[in-house]
Amino acid sequence: MTEKTLRVDLNSDMGEGFGTWSMGDDEAILDIVSTANVACGFHAGDPEIMARTFASAKKKGVAVGAHPGFPDLWGFGRRVMPYTGPEIERIVAYQVGAAQALASYAGHKLTHVKAHGALGNLTQTSREIATAVSRAVKAVDPSLTCLVIALGEQSRIAAEMGLQVKSEIFADRAYDAMGRLVARGTPGAVIHDPEEAALRVVRMVRAQAIETIDGMSIPCPIDSICVHSDTPSAVKVAAAVRKRLQEDGITIGAW
Amino acid sequence: MTEKTLRVDLNSDMGEGFGTWSMGDDEAILDIVSTANVACGFHAGDPEIMARTFASAKKKGVAVGAHPGFPDLWGFGRRVMPYTGPEIERIVAYQVGAAQALASYAGHKLTHVKAHGALGNLTQTSREIATAVSRAVKAVDPSLTCLVIALGEQSRIAAEMGLQVKSEIFADRAYDAMGRLVARGTPGAVIHDPEEAALRVVRMVRAQAIETIDGMSIPCPIDSICVHSDTPSAVKVAAAVRKRLQEDGITIGAW
Amino acid sequence: MTEKTLRVDLNSDMGEGFGTWSMGDDEAILDIVSTANVACGFHAGDPEIMARTFASAKKKGVAVGAHPGFPDLWGFGRRVMPYTGPEIERIVAYQVGAAQALASYAGHKLTHVKAHGALGNLTQTSREIATAVSRAVKAVDPSLTCLVIALGEQSRIAAEMGLQVKSEIFADRAYDAMGRLVARGTPGAVIHDPEEAALRVVRMVRAQAIETIDGMSIPCPIDSICVHSDTPSAVKVAAAVRKRLQEDGITIGAW
Amino acid sequence: MTEKTLRVDLNSDMGEGFGTWSMGDDEAILDIVSTANVACGFHAGDPEIMARTFASAKKKGVAVGAHPGFPDLWGFGRRVMPYTGPEIERIVAYQVGAAQALASYAGHKLTHVKAHGALGNLTQTSREIATAVSRAVKAVDPSLTCLVIALGEQSRIAAEMGLQVKSEIFADRAYDAMGRLVARGTPGAVIHDPEEAALRVVRMVRAQAIETIDGMSIPCPIDSICVHSDTPSAVKVAAAVRKRLQEDGITIGAW
Repeated sequence: MTEKTLRVDLNSDMGEGFGTWSMGDDEAILDIVSTANVACGFHAGDPEIMARTFASAKKKGVAVGAHPGFPDLWGFGRRVMPYTGPEIERIVAYQVGAAQALASYAGHKLTHVKAHGALGNLTQTSREIATAVSRAVKAVDPSLTCLVIALGEQSRIAAEMGLQVKSEIFADRAYDAMGRLVARGTPGAVIHDPEEAALRVVRMVRAQAIETIDGMSIPCPIDSICVHSDTPSAVKVAAAVRKRLQEDGITIGAW
Repeated sequence: MTEKTLRVDLNSDMGEGFGTWSMGDDEAILDIVSTANVACGFHAGDPEIMARTFASAKKKGVAVGAHPGFPDLWGFGRRVMPYTGPEIERIVAYQVGAAQALASYAGHKLTHVKAHGALGNLTQTSREIATAVSRAVKAVDPSLTCLVIALGEQSRIAAEMGLQVKSEIFADRAYDAMGRLVARGTPGAVIHDPEEAALRVVRMVRAQAIETIDGMSIPCPIDSICVHSDTPSAVKVAAAVRKRLQEDGITIGAW
Repeated sequence: MTEKTLRVDLNSDMGEGFGTWSMGDDEAILDIVSTANVACGFHAGDPEIMARTFASAKKKGVAVGAHPGFPDLWGFGRRVMPYTGPEIERIVAYQVGAAQALASYAGHKLTHVKAHGALGNLTQTSREIATAVSRAVKAVDPSLTCLVIALGEQSRIAAEMGLQVKSEIFADRAYDAMGRLVARGTPGAVIHDPEEAALRVVRMVRAQAIETIDGMSIPCPIDSICVHSDTPSAVKVAAAVRKRLQEDGITIGAW
Repeated sequence: MTEKTLRVDLNSDMGEGFGTWSMGDDEAILDIVSTANVACGFHAGDPEIMARTFASAKKKGVAVGAHPGFPDLWGFGRRVMPYTGPEIERIVAYQVGAAQALASYAGHKLTHVKAHGALGNLTQTSREIATAVSRAVKAVDPSLTCLVIALGEQSRIAAEMGLQVKSEIFADRAYDAMGRLVARGTPGAVIHDPEEAALRVVRMVRAQAIETIDGMSIPCPIDSICVHSDTPSAVKVAAAVRKRLQEDGITIGAW
């Protein structure tokens, strides 16, 4: 496991604008992360933004994946939409294919798929939805990795299907005793101090274990750290995490 | 050229519903044609319809292609939308990728791309748009064939790019002296009689030449015959064309 | 109550196409009903269809109302979308205003609002959603009548808000002991025989009571009968209901 | 004309976000202007944003109007979409009605309609489109004022239809010898210095004449000054214009 503790991926969600509207500072975060999850047009993103984001990631040596969400531009994919498992398979397959094509168009190549927003949260807790997303990946291109929430349903289900699985933790979010995110709004749920977040990440990567809000430790593979780009302070957290990992001798890079 | 005159493809546009709405009798036409062009969600179609259409085509041994159009569900892709060539490249790439993914999902595989509606018409007359569609195909998957309007701009441009090109004529539409479709509304523009349409198709395939409305003949490769599914009479024309081709000893099949 | 038993409204949902796609035979049903509920563009309908439907209704002397639904063209408003009560207020207000404007444009005037599909079903059972729809109507134009499902939550809530309320029953659907629709799929849930449906409607209007599937009777105001236009057999049921009501001396007309 | 030179309206386009995405600092600009043109959901805006913007304008004593655009969220209404005049009538009517309803919902009331983006530009130069927008306003509510581009086609056409017309000029844009906006990109097309823009506005309002880029003056009614909210520097221009007008003794207020 020596090699594993010495290398970790930094990922961020990107291309989350639509038409004239933008979200986050993608160019700044592309200088920090090793992997970008690119919105596919259902909850955010459009062909122009996708092509531009894939091209920029290619230029900066950042790996790219599809970041499919519910078909809900208005709600940015954060509403739990009432689609069945089989419908979600088709919704995800469609978006992964569109992303593959635009990555090719931009001279890049997808490495993975990570579900977005409410769909992503469901892959952590719902066996049905975790299965649906994994089945879509397998049907479209079984060489694509599933980037999943550590300890969630999809980490187990995708592996059982024979897919490659990489587990992510969040740099600035507290975990409860079950290894699930503490709900926003709860005191301590979000770690605002970049330095504190960065040091915690280094400890978790070294230990390959999640630190919970009540001081426990849950062993699990930690292949990637998710950082955000949507606020200036999120970019600061991302930069601090990168700096501390490097200072600690941990290589940052996609798999 | 003996072999060529003995084999021709029959294609039809399909999967042109949206959600609860349907258009045409896809199941009936799938029993007649050898190739289906499947709408990709921008002017018609959705992930459910696409998956269902690809699965049905697979079952019936019908080849499938992407049928990308302008992003205009309201106008069914029939309005000329003001997108630039580079924007159209991304719009087409996105749709082709989505179609590839859903074909894979349904156990099938795309053979070609044919532009729909106003976008398709522009590939006949506009060098810029013909180039954009061809560039998208090449970027996404250069093994895909371009199914183009016989004698149109894209037939030349796609070939120059090194792409495979197949030329189609319409079973029930008259051609002018330039080899372009006579505008609907002009007397004689549409051939309503199935038998007349079928006999004309056989003559054109045998001759590898387009018959014009004024009795001339323009030599050109005729690789495929486009038939429609959107009205009961269109299905009758399609059936008559199939029957007459077979009676004449011409094999019907995709390339 | 003599007058009431002698007059009843026949209503149908209309304008449920989108762009090139159509649904139901609106012109046929406009010759049968006294009231049309017109889709407002969120689950079906568009400005062209709305204007055309309002103009045709005006010409045929049919009263018109707004038929707002969830913002879900793909699902035709039949999915229960996760919007809050206040969000639904704004969603409904928007659609009612758009319908008022296009009715004015077509020389007609809205009389009422009836919620569509999944939203309509929720007004029967959910106090929160029934309140939201009623609040939207009141805010936009308190002179508009709420056309509601007989015995449902909205019939009580809208009246408490001081709004005019009219209660509808379905011509071809069975009711359970609670006065709620028997779920489709249950034996006897749908009455297919036009004559049987028509005679039952006459009895219920005369009695001002709902007949349940187990032979009981639940007294309630019955101001309108809902008939459908989406299948040829639905139009037959509508015509039979109209004929039997007239033969029985019951006047058909909007309020 | 004394009174007229002493009073002028300051207007700004607002509510131009969509869902999670925002554009401009609406709250800052609402403290500066006397009139807000609110996007209606076709090129920007949604029922939530509309209700919120109307409520905020009401609270701050700012008059509100509908700001309808082409149905093009992706292009923010800046693409010239190929709709016919009659189609534009329905597109505009729909949006005006929706805006009226949400203004009522928020306790406010529309005073006017101003066309957005590419549609707005067409009302300056195209008789057909200027007629279509004016006809929509007249059909929906003839008491609504048309806020039009000074010297444009709609200023004449709407007046001929008997509608109230108010003419606007832009605070930070240069005009050519025909009284039309100098195209962005041309040197001097945009006036970046807030003070220079403000002083020019005061001169034009006093003179009731447009100053052209070549030093001429074209007399015309100037009822309103359009300022922007989409960049911090645009807000500075708006504030400077307000300040200078007030210092010069000109009352700022809607009509």
